[in-house]
Amino acid sequence: MITLTDNQLTSVGVALLKAVGVPDESARLVTRYLVDANLVGHDSHGIMRVPYYVRAIRSGRMKTDMDIEIVRETPTSAVVNGNSGIGQVVATKCMELAIKKAEEHTLGCVVVYSLGHIGRLSDYSAMAMNRGMIGITLHGGFGGIVAPFGGVEGRLSTNPICLAMPTSDQIPFIMDFATSVVAEGKVRNKLHRGEDVPDGWIIDKEGRPSHNPKDLYDGGAILPFGGKAGHKATALGVMAMLGGILSGTPDKTMMGDLFLAINIKDFIPVTDFTKRMDAVIKHIKSSKPVSGVKSVLTPGEPEMEVMKTRSTKGIEIPDGAWKNILETAKELNVDIDKLIQ
Amino acid sequence: MITLTDNQLTSVGVALLKAVGVPDESARLVTRYLVDANLVGHDSHGIMRVPYYVRAIRSGRMKTDMDIEIVRETPTSAVVNGNSGIGQVVATKCMELAIKKAEEHTLGCVVVYSLGHIGRLSDYSAMAMNRGMIGITLHGGFGGIVAPFGGVEGRLSTNPICLAMPTSDQIPFIMDFATSVVAEGKVRNKLHRGEDVPDGWIIDKEGRPSHNPKDLYDGGAILPFGGKAGHKATALGVMAMLGGILSGTPDKTMMGDLFLAINIKDFIPVTDFTKRMDAVIKHIKSSKPVSGVKSVLTPGEPEMEVMKTRSTKGIEIPDGAWKNILETAKELNVDIDKLIQ
Repeated sequence: MITLTDNQLTSVGVALLKAVGVPDESARLVTRYLVDANLVGHDSHGIMRVPYYVRAIRSGRMKTDMDIEIVRETPTSAVVNGNSGIGQVVATKCMELAIKKAEEHTLGCVVVYSLGHIGRLSDYSAMAMNRGMIGITLHGGFGGIVAPFGGVEGRLSTNPICLAMPTSDQIPFIMDFATSVVAEGKVRNKLHRGEDVPDGWIIDKEGRPSHNPKDLYDGGAILPFGGKAGHKATALGVMAMLGGILSGTPDKTMMGDLFLAINIKDFIPVTDFTKRMDAVIKHIKSSKPVSGVKSVLTPGEPEMEVMKTRSTKGIEIPDGAWKNILETAKELNVDIDKLIQ
Repeated sequence: MITLTDNQLTSVGVALLKAVGVPDESARLVTRYLVDANLVGHDSHGIMRVPYYVRAIRSGRMKTDMDIEIVRETPTSAVVNGNSGIGQVVATKCMELAIKKAEEHTLGCVVVYSLGHIGRLSDYSAMAMNRGMIGITLHGGFGGIVAPFGGVEGRLSTNPICLAMPTSDQIPFIMDFATSVVAEGKVRNKLHRGEDVPDGWIIDKEGRPSHNPKDLYDGGAILPFGGKAGHKATALGVMAMLGGILSGTPDKTMMGDLFLAINIKDFIPVTDFTKRMDAVIKHIKSSKPVSGVKSVLTPGEPEMEVMKTRSTKGIEIPDGAWKNILETAKELNVDIDKLIQ
């Protein structure tokens, strides 16, 4: 397993994306989001995605030079056609638009279709949060990968939902999770590492519980989170599709995204809001932890812990993911050794 | 166990509420919501609540004659002081206000503090849904009843979240669930019925798993839903507090509600939206069910099934709940026998 710094990973990501025609600014934006994901421990949304993006661009499924198109608009809302653009680039523009509308009219809601994989939703919700707003991001669509509660066959994608709210002296509150037990990339990582998956993650194509990550890619499915209360997660999985449903995407998977910004200052002063969030987090953390747990953690906190370590000790890249990157570099005549020396 | 029709229950509810000073129109509104909850199988939010409401009114905690007060407002938003009004009455006015704003400006968001128990959130989200909008309702605050993920001591209330979306030929999509494993009322019902609670619902005051509903009321806590992924539910539990946080409620529990209406027609024609929702539901239901399950159900569907039975065969009221109602009736000199004859 190779260990690299965030700067080294950034060089690799930018070089590969530029080699396939992504403009410099966009290549840096995409890579920053991916490496940030690695830094906070979400390798499933990290640099391992680059080879998939490269493939999508080379096949023409993802365009490097398209701009977004506003199909329909009101002062508080917009429906956007992403024109098969790079996910992170399109999504950033959409959240910027939602924020602009919320600045003027308290609320801004932008839905978008036709764009590439957008990575971690936190990045977009945090854009609003960093402007004193509440940021909500939904991503979803049909897919063969996640079974609905009570079903054997996959019908949904992992359909994540995300909410970011500012705090003052606490770590920001960032909720960002797949409505499946895990993101698909985490199963893929287990496959790359040659490890079993834990109980309750996946079923095989016959609907039987399985620990073998290969079974997922052989007609199996990831379960909704929640176990016996998995109907709640399946419902959230449909909520995550709101961008796709509301945008009227012609995509048969109904895949789309929703960005909602809520301007706090039109409700209460932002400093009051952040103090109240501090109090919420403090109150929750004051619960005596269950035996074996050091303290109750709140959303965003585990990520900050991982970042402390990884920003000094570097990021381990699983062999499978690194092999994909090396192969992609070879195809594109990019000299990886030179970039990470 | 006594079995009554929805009309009989309505007579009982209206009579008790009017006897304690609730105006006729409000008494009918509250009772309709409660009996509707019984009809669809959510007895925890049904007629059993009346004695608690009566007690809250008699103690002065809930006022029968106050109107809402708009503390702060923009064209798309409002902060409302409920002035300790009856929950259902205040909440109905707040969602009406959110809908009005969404009619004019696509989005409407109203947050409220200082009001009584509002019952099932579905009732308010459905108001928006029945007007061709998406309706979102959040209710939450601190409480000793639900433990945060990884904690022993209760820190949150059951903090439910709700989303309603219109369909055309399918049952409407109504997601409405507690972010705890179950609503507190469902544990209370088990207590009334003298039954054990299932695995994974509650812990006792030492943090040990328990099946005895009494342990909850003796310093124990309900768990967040999600089992090992319970951190997701705890995060949703904080999201449910958004109304309380954003309204600046002086209530120490930070209890409050949020009502959001999204006017579909400003994104896509409502008939397109409902057709798309039909397709979503049909696609999910097409998954082969797991063995032992007849078919995959979507949110709102189990409720419709129960309603078919209960609207013809009547509603069973557990002995404990009925005893409370009879005692309340006696205190208020209401002749229950005459009402249900």
